[in-house]
Amino acid sequence: MRDLERLKANLVGLVVEDEPGLVRKKSRDFYWYSPILKRDLDHVTGDLVVSPTTEAEVCQAIAAAFDADVPVTPRGSGTGNYGQAMPLSGGMVLSLGGLNAITHIGPGTVTAGAGALLGKIDAATRAHSGQELRMFPSTHRTASIGGFIAGGSGGVGSIRWGGLRNIGNVTRLRVVTMEASPRVLVLEGDEIAKVAHAYGTNGIITACEMPLAPAYDWIDVMVGFESMERAAAFADRLGNEDGILLKELSVMAAPIAHEYFSAHGKFIRHDQAAVLIMVAPHSAAALDAFVRRHQGETVFRSDQISAEAQRTMPPLFELTWNHTTLVARRVDPTITYLQTLYPFPDHLAAVARMSALIGPEMSDHLEFIRFDGRVVCSGLPLIRFTTEERLDEIVRLFEANGCLVFNPHRYTLEEGGMKRSDLGQLAFKREVDPKGLLNPGKMIAWDDPDFDFKSERKYLFSAPAG
Amino acid sequence: MRDLERLKANLVGLVVEDEPGLVRKKSRDFYWYSPILKRDLDHVTGDLVVSPTTEAEVCQAIAAAFDADVPVTPRGSGTGNYGQAMPLSGGMVLSLGGLNAITHIGPGTVTAGAGALLGKIDAATRAHSGQELRMFPSTHRTASIGGFIAGGSGGVGSIRWGGLRNIGNVTRLRVVTMEASPRVLVLEGDEIAKVAHAYGTNGIITACEMPLAPAYDWIDVMVGFESMERAAAFADRLGNEDGILLKELSVMAAPIAHEYFSAHGKFIRHDQAAVLIMVAPHSAAALDAFVRRHQGETVFRSDQISAEAQRTMPPLFELTWNHTTLVARRVDPTITYLQTLYPFPDHLAAVARMSALIGPEMSDHLEFIRFDGRVVCSGLPLIRFTTEERLDEIVRLFEANGCLVFNPHRYTLEEGGMKRSDLGQLAFKREVDPKGLLNPGKMIAWDDPDFDFKSERKYLFSAPAG
Repeated sequence: MRDLERLKANLVGLVVEDEPGLVRKKSRDFYWYSPILKRDLDHVTGDLVVSPTTEAEVCQAIAAAFDADVPVTPRGSGTGNYGQAMPLSGGMVLSLGGLNAITHIGPGTVTAGAGALLGKIDAATRAHSGQELRMFPSTHRTASIGGFIAGGSGGVGSIRWGGLRNIGNVTRLRVVTMEASPRVLVLEGDEIAKVAHAYGTNGIITACEMPLAPAYDWIDVMVGFESMERAAAFADRLGNEDGILLKELSVMAAPIAHEYFSAHGKFIRHDQAAVLIMVAPHSAAALDAFVRRHQGETVFRSDQISAEAQRTMPPLFELTWNHTTLVARRVDPTITYLQTLYPFPDHLAAVARMSALIGPEMSDHLEFIRFDGRVVCSGLPLIRFTTEERLDEIVRLFEANGCLVFNPHRYTLEEGGMKRSDLGQLAFKREVDPKGLLNPGKMIAWDDPDFDFKSERKYLFSAPAG
Repeated sequence: MRDLERLKANLVGLVVEDEPGLVRKKSRDFYWYSPILKRDLDHVTGDLVVSPTTEAEVCQAIAAAFDADVPVTPRGSGTGNYGQAMPLSGGMVLSLGGLNAITHIGPGTVTAGAGALLGKIDAATRAHSGQELRMFPSTHRTASIGGFIAGGSGGVGSIRWGGLRNIGNVTRLRVVTMEASPRVLVLEGDEIAKVAHAYGTNGIITACEMPLAPAYDWIDVMVGFESMERAAAFADRLGNEDGILLKELSVMAAPIAHEYFSAHGKFIRHDQAAVLIMVAPHSAAALDAFVRRHQGETVFRSDQISAEAQRTMPPLFELTWNHTTLVARRVDPTITYLQTLYPFPDHLAAVARMSALIGPEMSDHLEFIRFDGRVVCSGLPLIRFTTEERLDEIVRLFEANGCLVFNPHRYTLEEGGMKRSDLGQLAFKREVDPKGLLNPGKMIAWDDPDFDFKSERKYLFSAPAG
């Protein structure tokens, strides 16, 4: 039986906040990109926020919550879009931002506390030995490494390295279990999949060992094409050029770049589709030749503007991935989005087909990535929101045409993922969270084992009485 | 009219050797891996060897040869296998080993003279800033960078970076033209393809700017499987794991590894197919997990033997690519080989089909590489040589089954390559070698424009009277 007073008594010595306004603020993420999640989750708040600064303090907080039957929702910086870090059952929000030490940097490897910000890690590894993380979301400046692993999937860098789900892209995790006497587990190899992208439902990640890649002074490039079709075909070929080292490769239909990019928009025409690229300096000449070969127009190169002009502009990656949605919503708040994956090898045909099927309420935004070794494109199309029914209909259209949808208008792991339960994660949860106190409501397999994913029913979590 | 005396008079100040035994020695490469080339090219020798140490001396030598109508065959270290550096028409052998200065190292880039050895470049870039060349042939210790570009195609590192033919894998070349007043051209981007892999038929490469990758303390790993089929399937999946950083990935049918590897053979059973891997230290745990997932047996890891034991063993890459052929021939000199490419995405089925079709006179040796963005396998199968007719029949069997053969029993660019002329290289040759004095006999398109590649006729170059 949940006992908040008993909990508080056991949190002596830890930083605890329970001022409702502040707790509410620390109970949210960027769920409001979705009008559906905005409506369904807006009321969600925890009862208190605990901010440990060491793994021992995490263990103390966890033991106290276990003892008092209080749910715990771990969070990094709260930059997710799926409500990953929102405490559907209230209880304790465990804010891990204080675990931010960078404890080891070596050739190809860094170890940091779960709360360390990606941008801070990269600054440290770059200064130490010219290295950087293989990949990061467009929230590079504000997202934490633990939050990225628990709630993210990939991003800038995925054109070279695939996603976080690929073995080798996270090399070791320390995880605290939700038990009377919390244990610290060290996971490697195949074991990492038990907790990665589980929204913190089955253990609290406290430290992360990640592989590094060489850091270069990446050049931002924007290339214009007369049509989306040509831009996508160019990007697909470019992604397959093994000798041109890229960190980012995305494509946006006209007029996204011109209309929504406040600083970069003026470089590209209203009717041009845009290809956004980060290229290593030593691959820039090859990229240039490749653009000419495909009759593209290089409309912007960050190394060809003054340092002063550069300072007034965001890095190009802050216009990619879900930042595209963000900057579009700043201009037009009726815009929302989807996350899709177009199946290899006919991904370009699928993009064109879906665009024709759905029409002007959708603007294509493609992110090229490596997926199990092949260059494919994922989509974050911008959608003009009308009704939930129409949004669901669009999702069904994608699925009926063989595309995967990672539905960002749902808050469960399964519906936001592969539409099936991860049995490895479920089995692991039984071991490490026997009371089911970690982030309740996010893992359908735990909460409602008989849920039928083939039905078109949406999963609705009923939070137990507090 | 060829005038050797006039030539010699104009070579004053250069290092010139004309002692026949020495000239003959410097007129060969590793053509003798092929019993056909051994027979056809054994008599080949130049008239003299010129060894410039500066680009200015190269220009002097070239001008002198142009003036005296003497053919010039450039060479690096002579580690090719296609007779690339063998002077079919005699004349001047231009030995570029003296142009070996490493003039610039920066983030992701190195510039070196054409004669610089790959191993020396890597030692310098590693010491300077922990970097190394993206790829190298198994003759890393002895091959020159200019020779690799002029006569090679890829090798160790191609599983990550593709081949030299991919734009971006050679970033800039300085090239001396074969004219009365030789010009120095600087080629970038698409222009590099005009001289790369042209055997020196259309310009003398004097300096090379190459991209670099981070240098790690690569771990050599050998994994045993019960069958070639399982080993190849494992390697194919491993090559597609974007998060596991490899530098080399090859597969050899039993009993190649056990029988022919003098130091490593004892680690693997006679009946085990072998997968040879170079993996970055920070990917070793992921590789380990991946091997277990596929029921492989890790029989050797270089980081798990003593430093003393390691010193007595060659690096694993010296058992891959054409070194596999070399070590096999040391045990059984009747062995020769082919170079093939199995078409994506059915490459594994093609490997199995060809193996079944050809039978025990062939032992499979696969090298996994990225080819235009996809992971495929090239083959360097070991073949027990009987007759030239049977060897030709095997080549035709491969081709009839949709596999490409880069025939290492032919000395022309076209027959050792894509069986068609490179019109860009031909046009460039007209510009830069109007008298056709550079490495005569290697470019069919120049020597016999009407040659029918569809016929099964073998091209035979008739050297003009000296």
